[in-house]
Amino acid sequence: MRQSELFTKTRREAPSDEVSKNAQLLIRAGFVHKEMAGVYSFLPLGLRTFERIVTIIREEMNAVGGVELYLSALQNPEVWKKTDRWSEEKVDSWFKTKLRSGAELGLGFTHEEPLTALMREHISSYKDLPVYAYQFQTKFRNEERAKSGLMRTREFVMKDLYSFVRDEKAHVEFYEKCADAYGKVFERVGLGAVTYKTFSSGGSFSKYSHEFQAVCETGEDTIYIDSDKKLAINKEVYDDKEVYEATGLHKDSLTEAKAVEVGNIFTLGTRFSEALGLKYKNEKGEEMPVFMGSYGIGPARLMAVIAELMSDNKGMVWPESIAPFRVHLVQLGDDAEVQKEAEEMYRALTSAGVEVLWDDTEHRAGEKFADSDLIGIPLRIVVSQKSLSEGKFECVERHSGTTAHRSLPELIGHLTND
Amino acid sequence: MRQSELFTKTRREAPSDEVSKNAQLLIRAGFVHKEMAGVYSFLPLGLRTFERIVTIIREEMNAVGGVELYLSALQNPEVWKKTDRWSEEKVDSWFKTKLRSGAELGLGFTHEEPLTALMREHISSYKDLPVYAYQFQTKFRNEERAKSGLMRTREFVMKDLYSFVRDEKAHVEFYEKCADAYGKVFERVGLGAVTYKTFSSGGSFSKYSHEFQAVCETGEDTIYIDSDKKLAINKEVYDDKEVYEATGLHKDSLTEAKAVEVGNIFTLGTRFSEALGLKYKNEKGEEMPVFMGSYGIGPARLMAVIAELMSDNKGMVWPESIAPFRVHLVQLGDDAEVQKEAEEMYRALTSAGVEVLWDDTEHRAGEKFADSDLIGIPLRIVVSQKSLSEGKFECVERHSGTTAHRSLPELIGHLTND
Repeated sequence: MRQSELFTKTRREAPSDEVSKNAQLLIRAGFVHKEMAGVYSFLPLGLRTFERIVTIIREEMNAVGGVELYLSALQNPEVWKKTDRWSEEKVDSWFKTKLRSGAELGLGFTHEEPLTALMREHISSYKDLPVYAYQFQTKFRNEERAKSGLMRTREFVMKDLYSFVRDEKAHVEFYEKCADAYGKVFERVGLGAVTYKTFSSGGSFSKYSHEFQAVCETGEDTIYIDSDKKLAINKEVYDDKEVYEATGLHKDSLTEAKAVEVGNIFTLGTRFSEALGLKYKNEKGEEMPVFMGSYGIGPARLMAVIAELMSDNKGMVWPESIAPFRVHLVQLGDDAEVQKEAEEMYRALTSAGVEVLWDDTEHRAGEKFADSDLIGIPLRIVVSQKSLSEGKFECVERHSGTTAHRSLPELIGHLTND
Repeated sequence: MRQSELFTKTRREAPSDEVSKNAQLLIRAGFVHKEMAGVYSFLPLGLRTFERIVTIIREEMNAVGGVELYLSALQNPEVWKKTDRWSEEKVDSWFKTKLRSGAELGLGFTHEEPLTALMREHISSYKDLPVYAYQFQTKFRNEERAKSGLMRTREFVMKDLYSFVRDEKAHVEFYEKCADAYGKVFERVGLGAVTYKTFSSGGSFSKYSHEFQAVCETGEDTIYIDSDKKLAINKEVYDDKEVYEATGLHKDSLTEAKAVEVGNIFTLGTRFSEALGLKYKNEKGEEMPVFMGSYGIGPARLMAVIAELMSDNKGMVWPESIAPFRVHLVQLGDDAEVQKEAEEMYRALTSAGVEVLWDDTEHRAGEKFADSDLIGIPLRIVVSQKSLSEGKFECVERHSGTTAHRSLPELIGHLTND
């Protein structure tokens, strides 16, 4: 893409009311726009990175048998009353609204209820199980505070998968499989080394659940890590003896850290299926409640955590897997020769399947380099009179700062062979 | 995809409260689920077709220079007050909600205001223009009635593009280009033959605008068509003499038809840029308001219109370009030989890039054929003992009913060479 067509501009300063590092950086680099506290829009660069994260999650969910659907945001109170989650005393994060008739509706903060209700039309026999259904869908949560940038917002897309199986045994099997898939997601987006499967409270659904926590100074959670076993325990259950029996961890080998929840997996059991009447007939013709689990990841929160962790004083340092582009082609000068060379480079890379942001703007070299560092695309390639006369192009890795000089064929080889 | 993994079931009957043909069909075929009046969720088959329509629109918007972004649904009242569209007396389709603090927010029914406000940070000079920004984003509209199934819903994804240019001349140029792109979209999704560019009222923005109207008995609009010129006039402006001068059409050569609006393009002029202070400096350093236009298409409405128009008494008849799968592979019997052959066929087609829904269920042949007709995938291929003994497979076109018998290599050739 030509940078002249990308309408966004980088900024020297983030809005004065923005206190979180991730939002400050993502706003300055032109990835997101702040609409109001806890509400952000995605600009073209931000949307590209967001979509890359979505694609990685989708691939891993499909790999464990997930089938994608898309539920509505507007919620019918009837199904939520059946599980006693409609009243604001029970759930304080509802955003509610009204039809013109005056009838109240909700904006989904999660989707257990409508999906369980929907499945009554499709699940009736053991032969219909298992079902693993997931979506990327907007959740609305009326958060009291919104000071963590894109880590906690009032409106965000969530990947939520719900598993419907016959019994606890089948559930445990899928639960472990999905936990492994989550591990792969965090690995692929670049958070593998800092993310721990964390034993935590089960909230209102079950005694315990698992979170995936990424170690991060600005995180809202405190966890206790066993780094050899790559496991952790959330502070909520740190003093609970049963946890140590269940996990085999020892209190004295744990180290404390601040962390951000980047994913969670819950055993729901039959709480929703019983309340909403989702049953199946087993081989003997007996009616049984369907056993359920839920599994969430917020792609924009991953983006925010990566912004917190993978940046330096110059700006973002995106991992290749989720960078908005692979190459930032920086053209210096606009004389005919340089222009022609930049165009050729752009075409050659693009047809080799490399995604390129081509800085064809009129800005000065210093501004272009500062912008390029701020945006944080993994590889910068400079086309200038100097590179023309040498027949080699300066290639700078954003991550390491390493510089190499490569001819166009060498570059293509470098970018397509790894 | 194996049909046994697709959890949805077809239904003999749609919900009794569903009066529209498109929703009845799409529910029966397992494409959508009705949450409540005017609110539908997308099941896996429906989501696939929806995404295909989105892809076609995205390609055509990119082709005219569109850059994709994604704005929030939650709306800050401040920007809407500046254009006098916050009060419910002015806009009766708002859904509003509240923060815990009691502060009111809106749910976007369109996005002129926030995008114009956002652009103030990116547009300041004539060098920053033009900008064509678009999104696929959920709109919420508090419709009084919701009886047209997916043609008019209270929550729906819309492709809305907004153009920001220097003056009316530049606007008219892009407006025409975008109208042509819309023509291509309707052509590609299979509505080309029935869709007319239609002169209509400009609403609150300008005197006139253009709609794209698809002729359809169940449509809410009435249009007057000149079929030679492929143009039409909306009833709203049918008696307005100026329209005939502007279009060169003659009242006596027009024929009346019911139609559904499948797209619209508006000249917004400087209404929003002046109210919100979106200006640019021209070559002389003078401050000018940016000239705007907006361009909308609802992918689910297209899906609904296609369901109304491209179906028969057996079910859906999807055009190839937006069908959820290209081939419905129907396996009859589950003896080892048939099973093996079906698997081989599935692999061969899939690796040739053909998307296949493989009916590997235990249903009887009659049920499978009825399901297949209802779902409406363009080509049905039957694998059975009969096909094995003949070495040829029965291939039935859903559209024409034409039957051919082809060997596997012939099939692959047939499916990949056109």
